[in-house]
Amino acid sequence: VDLETCLAKRRDTRHFTPDPVPAAVLQKALQAAHQAPSVGLSEPWRFIQVSSPAVKRQILANFQECRDDAEEQLSAEKDRQNLHRSLKLEAITTAPVGLAVFCEQPRDDQYILGTTTARETLQWSVACAIQNLWLSLTAQGYGLGWVSILDLSWLARTLAAPDHWYPMGYLCIGKPATDYAGQPMLEREKWGRRSQQPYVLVR
Amino acid sequence: VDLETCLAKRRDTRHFTPDPVPAAVLQKALQAAHQAPSVGLSEPWRFIQVSSPAVKRQILANFQECRDDAEEQLSAEKDRQNLHRSLKLEAITTAPVGLAVFCEQPRDDQYILGTTTARETLQWSVACAIQNLWLSLTAQGYGLGWVSILDLSWLARTLAAPDHWYPMGYLCIGKPATDYAGQPMLEREKWGRRSQQPYVLVR
Repeated sequence: VDLETCLAKRRDTRHFTPDPVPAAVLQKALQAAHQAPSVGLSEPWRFIQVSSPAVKRQILANFQECRDDAEEQLSAEKDRQNLHRSLKLEAITTAPVGLAVFCEQPRDDQYILGTTTARETLQWSVACAIQNLWLSLTAQGYGLGWVSILDLSWLARTLAAPDHWYPMGYLCIGKPATDYAGQPMLEREKWGRRSQQPYVLVR
Repeated sequence: VDLETCLAKRRDTRHFTPDPVPAAVLQKALQAAHQAPSVGLSEPWRFIQVSSPAVKRQILANFQECRDDAEEQLSAEKDRQNLHRSLKLEAITTAPVGLAVFCEQPRDDQYILGTTTARETLQWSVACAIQNLWLSLTAQGYGLGWVSILDLSWLARTLAAPDHWYPMGYLCIGKPATDYAGQPMLEREKWGRRSQQPYVLVR
């Protein structure tokens, strides 16, 4: 599939069909993630695939708590709060595949080229890997929703993630049940609007 | 161009020909960046294109200082330090286009959906945008090198970036002079090696 088509069709998806995700599709998408650029060739991306329905239910409960906390911040704007409450922001127990993503942080004495001025570069590499995974799934006719409304330290503990794995969210993966009429879901639901152009200054 | 080809051919490039980058190529790549996912539809990516040769020379000097500092950390491993010194890690004054990238941080009272549990999600969105830019340039026959060995706060000040723009590095963009024999340059130069597979646990 053409790159331009993938970039345009990629959606943050929260509505999935019950169709399973073939292992080969997921494997190919993970290999695409693994081709991402990484600072100092660190390849810091780490994944935990969550297969236990009981664990997924715990993650959903954690999401709901965090979401309630977030919505309290909107108590002065009732219309906005109601719209927020109406949005479907996850598919934790309904998406066939759940993948928690982490960034392995180096030990203090470990030199990683390119990170001496900004340790966050490691997380940025993982974000690039997630974008590759996302594009590969899109090209293969599947979709992904990145859930960040979670107590991420709790997620790492609950999944017994190894030490030094910094949690970056939970990906819901499956066959999209809708393409949101070709727009981001948040635009479709009138939460926000995309701008036409990126913001570029010249110096 | 096919997504898989782009993913495989994308390189962190530090060797460019003097060929200019047509405005249409850069514009298309920036539009690709602008199609990235963003937390809460925040589109937090901001760009400053650096056209002044004098400013580029200042950025190069800052890079050299930061690189010297980094190399001091390797003083106990002389072979590694020498190899590090031999690596070409930037093309700040030779790449035809220089683009500093920033993440616009929200004001304290500004609610952005999806960021309440992790403010870093905004930077992760910008990293996804950079990956899109990179893939689009690759598809168009151009290349990019992401330079992070800089005092990033200094960079923001020097470019008079607006307040609340968090600096994420400097991108060197142009026509690649080499494809490093189809490997990452750091692998080609024997600094490190890619692993075969991403690391996936199952819970």
